[in-house]
Amino acid sequence: MSIVNDIYPFDSQRVILREVGLRDGLQQVRKYPSTVGKVAWISQGKNAGLRHFEVGSFLPPKRYPQFADVRDLINCVNEIDEVFSSVLVMNERAIADAVKTNVDELVCVVSATEEHSQANMRRSQSDSIDLVRAANNARKFSGRKRVIVAAIPMSFGCSISGEVPKQAVLNLAASCLEAGADAISIADTVGFAAPLQITDLARDVVKLCAKVPVIIHLHDTRGLALANAAAALDVGINIIDGAVGGLGGCPFAPGATGNVVLEDLVFLCERMGFRTDIDLQKLIDIRQILAREMPDEILYGTLARAGPPPRIYWGS
Amino acid sequence: MSIVNDIYPFDSQRVILREVGLRDGLQQVRKYPSTVGKVAWISQGKNAGLRHFEVGSFLPPKRYPQFADVRDLINCVNEIDEVFSSVLVMNERAIADAVKTNVDELVCVVSATEEHSQANMRRSQSDSIDLVRAANNARKFSGRKRVIVAAIPMSFGCSISGEVPKQAVLNLAASCLEAGADAISIADTVGFAAPLQITDLARDVVKLCAKVPVIIHLHDTRGLALANAAAALDVGINIIDGAVGGLGGCPFAPGATGNVVLEDLVFLCERMGFRTDIDLQKLIDIRQILAREMPDEILYGTLARAGPPPRIYWGS
Repeated sequence: MSIVNDIYPFDSQRVILREVGLRDGLQQVRKYPSTVGKVAWISQGKNAGLRHFEVGSFLPPKRYPQFADVRDLINCVNEIDEVFSSVLVMNERAIADAVKTNVDELVCVVSATEEHSQANMRRSQSDSIDLVRAANNARKFSGRKRVIVAAIPMSFGCSISGEVPKQAVLNLAASCLEAGADAISIADTVGFAAPLQITDLARDVVKLCAKVPVIIHLHDTRGLALANAAAALDVGINIIDGAVGGLGGCPFAPGATGNVVLEDLVFLCERMGFRTDIDLQKLIDIRQILAREMPDEILYGTLARAGPPPRIYWGS
Repeated sequence: MSIVNDIYPFDSQRVILREVGLRDGLQQVRKYPSTVGKVAWISQGKNAGLRHFEVGSFLPPKRYPQFADVRDLINCVNEIDEVFSSVLVMNERAIADAVKTNVDELVCVVSATEEHSQANMRRSQSDSIDLVRAANNARKFSGRKRVIVAAIPMSFGCSISGEVPKQAVLNLAASCLEAGADAISIADTVGFAAPLQITDLARDVVKLCAKVPVIIHLHDTRGLALANAAAALDVGINIIDGAVGGLGGCPFAPGATGNVVLEDLVFLCERMGFRTDIDLQKLIDIRQILAREMPDEILYGTLARAGPPPRIYWGS
């Protein structure tokens, strides 16, 4: 029932980059981009070589107007066969809504700490694992093959409850797999991780997951997102979330920088010897769309300033 | 004749951070900070726990007014015994001037490529090694113990001539040691390095240098400075240059970000298990001085925005 191997084909020489700006990037912006702007963002992203887009969350549009057009964006992403759409599902209602669409991937959130789970989802960790189970059941009868990702925020430390024992994350990941997840995403939601923490946890998650894809989701809150990405690559994670311009913020990390900057991540991966199949200049050009649609947002990143590096410092 | 073990005492649990903003940070700024401002910067830096300041370059003050007060700054740094002053010396005249002062350290530049050497110093690589020799001789008769650092810009790739063979850097480092250098600094002047290049070269430089201290100098031109610092720490380099606010630019990397952000570097080191003996908030407070003195400069860095992390995510 799953198409996980189509969406995340294993290739040890290649890094798959997921653009999560349309979802995670829009949580705190002052002015929401128009649907037309988002479509341009996706189209230019495809044009640059991106194949994975997290386009929104199924939430009440009155409270979350930034995701009101999530169905349109799923359709926009899915126009091309090899490009995949993903949505966040935070409750049973969202799952029911999601499986009525052509979305390729459902991301269920299972917080690494009970405290964050309650604050973020108003739901216990145990209930969140039930949500993975519910998503797994729902997709079976939905007439379309889809992937279930279990995302574990605060995997590297929690801004509410403090340190997170590695074993707790491993146990959660195991429970999510048992509940039907096809892929595990470990997230440094508030930028507490440093390379040592990344290698320590990521190595064990990769081992636990065996052939199940592991995604890493990094925020640059304290400047270490790229260093952490390098550490993750070192231990065999080759699916990484990012957002053009480092868009995004988190209600639990006020004042902080957002997601790891996707264009800088491309340079890191290529310089570390991995293919990304992404055209860096075309990716950088997406910033113009973001600047036009969200004039109040700071766009982060260094490559947009310095320009793509000379070919000689690029992948092969 | 050297005090290298006083200035760079070996401690595998500790990282020594060198503030190079007063020298490397001022190469491209629009308005130069006042001497009073620089003194405040140094004083607040000491207060934060910094012990190493690169305060300028002995160059003709008419052409390089930003370094006209270098002697005052050496005196300011040296007011406390355990704080060390460093200057760049680009020619014989500079060496003669430097050894008349109380400066603790002379940094001689030996470019990794002949092309950059000519463009930057109007001097061949071979002549640059002679400069190390000259500095070594001059300090012997200067009535004060001093350290000679040989700094090798473009060690990880050159914006003029392209890729730099590792062996070329190793040969240069060996020649510098032979010429009397007490420490070797390898520099990613234009931000071409990625973690793999860092570990590859740094590991061999550390091996070559044996008990001789190795410094790494990183620019964040393409966002990888902190990732590269982590890689350097991994292979045993524990003396790292940086600048508060990521100040600095390079005439050979137009539009690019400057030095690695010192305050973010502190967080990286502490999270990787090294002591820095630096008070992060006090370090961050230096940015106010920089903003006042150089209102046109962008101050980079994430920790100043996010605030110091909770104690639990800090070094012991």
